[in-house]
Amino acid sequence: MKTNLNCIPCFIRQALDAVRFVTSDEEIHETVLREVLKSVSIIDMKQTPPLMARHIHRIIRKCSGSNDPYIIVKKKSNDYALEIYPYLKQKIEESKKPFETACHLAIAGNIIDFGVNSKFDRSLINKNIEIALTEDLKGDIKYFQKQIFSAKKILYLADNAGEIVFDRLLLEKMPTEKVIMAVRGKPAINDATIEDAKYTKLTDIVDVIDNGTDIPGTVFEECSDKFKKVFSDADLIISKGQGNFESLSDTNKNIFFLLKAKCSIVSQHLKCETGDSVIVFHS
Amino acid sequence: MKTNLNCIPCFIRQALDAVRFVTSDEEIHETVLREVLKSVSIIDMKQTPPLMARHIHRIIRKCSGSNDPYIIVKKKSNDYALEIYPYLKQKIEESKKPFETACHLAIAGNIIDFGVNSKFDRSLINKNIEIALTEDLKGDIKYFQKQIFSAKKILYLADNAGEIVFDRLLLEKMPTEKVIMAVRGKPAINDATIEDAKYTKLTDIVDVIDNGTDIPGTVFEECSDKFKKVFSDADLIISKGQGNFESLSDTNKNIFFLLKAKCSIVSQHLKCETGDSVIVFHS
Repeated sequence: MKTNLNCIPCFIRQALDAVRFVTSDEEIHETVLREVLKSVSIIDMKQTPPLMARHIHRIIRKCSGSNDPYIIVKKKSNDYALEIYPYLKQKIEESKKPFETACHLAIAGNIIDFGVNSKFDRSLINKNIEIALTEDLKGDIKYFQKQIFSAKKILYLADNAGEIVFDRLLLEKMPTEKVIMAVRGKPAINDATIEDAKYTKLTDIVDVIDNGTDIPGTVFEECSDKFKKVFSDADLIISKGQGNFESLSDTNKNIFFLLKAKCSIVSQHLKCETGDSVIVFHS
Repeated sequence: MKTNLNCIPCFIRQALDAVRFVTSDEEIHETVLREVLKSVSIIDMKQTPPLMARHIHRIIRKCSGSNDPYIIVKKKSNDYALEIYPYLKQKIEESKKPFETACHLAIAGNIIDFGVNSKFDRSLINKNIEIALTEDLKGDIKYFQKQIFSAKKILYLADNAGEIVFDRLLLEKMPTEKVIMAVRGKPAINDATIEDAKYTKLTDIVDVIDNGTDIPGTVFEECSDKFKKVFSDADLIISKGQGNFESLSDTNKNIFFLLKAKCSIVSQHLKCETGDSVIVFHS
């Protein structure tokens, strides 16, 4: 998926959000903003949004002097998700369709996205959980479930910190012995890294690798050799979130994309409404 | 009111909207976008938003080859407002508080703003009319009405094309012999110019001058001598819309600001919610 020009104002807003997480010094905000504007004015706009985002967030990290602007909100997200995890697990156990409820909750967790939201907002997360617990999920869940149980090697591409605790709920309904989860190799917006996987104890239930990159998505040719091998060996890929969708939507693999469509560009691609929870299969 | 850094992503979005009104050629969209990004990266961010907007819209006009990117949506706005004018006039005549209803409708017309909206949307206008006809207007209308009738010289600062037909409804409840209306001197987003005032026949009921500028707001020192004299002579100013508010909020004159607060920056200044219809007095 190419970057739409509508993504550009969104990237500029993201730059401001990011630097505001690092410091309240408005002079630094302005410096970072000017650097990002200058850089985007000459950027290759044919790249996918995650590659453009990497470029922009590298500038933000360099100019703001912070290697990980989102470190505090990532911790907040993990902590809140861990706090409500027992409640969510109970809801799945009580559900008449536990696998479907687990899927829906895993997608609800995708709302924890600081590429889209400027603030950590518990009420927004709670609202998405409520929807997941009361509404049916659109998409062929039965086919998804069948594919999971017939696959030999599954690669689960994580998206955000906090969200990975919601992913745990789904992983607990899956044959985890054949699943490898992949996180980002370095800080990339609020995407989960290996530190988040360890902190939330995902590493206790599933093998977790990192993809070696600081891209908020999955760009195969940029990934580590280890990741490339796992990706190539997998006969089923579960991809969470917009960044992974934007970078893998043209890939010839069996991929289930589980995400919330959080902007009009992605929802147009998915032929759904902005805000929808979506599960789609590409092969 | 200084430009907030949050205004910058909004200006970038505005640039895209503007050039898309001119052409469907995506190469030109990208060229204009790059030029605007480059220019904003070195802009004086201490200016008011309308001065920044002028700078950006000059680049858009230059790069897009169009002297007036909004000419078609301005005509659409005027035509639709003229079409519904008899209905709105009837509603005022039937109202128990005709002056208040006229005020509220004049503010409802402020929703016709292509600095904020990317498309001409009748349903959005109709929704705002419905609110104006069913809800009470916040603000001291009685004081506003009293000041209008006791003032000697009133300057009415118009905002957008289309909206000026809604202003007509309010002007018809005012002593128009002491009112001068001012429009922009040249194309400035979708702000009304003298051509719009003539097209909608505002010139039949009130004296209309232009302010000599292409700024989507009122920056006194940039205006024509004729405008400056009228502004200085007026003992009451009625100011429509965000652009006029942003440029006059620190001015020492008796000014009633009538507007819809259409973004979080302006609503924070006005201590109201985004979307509110507002009438506030500064002196």
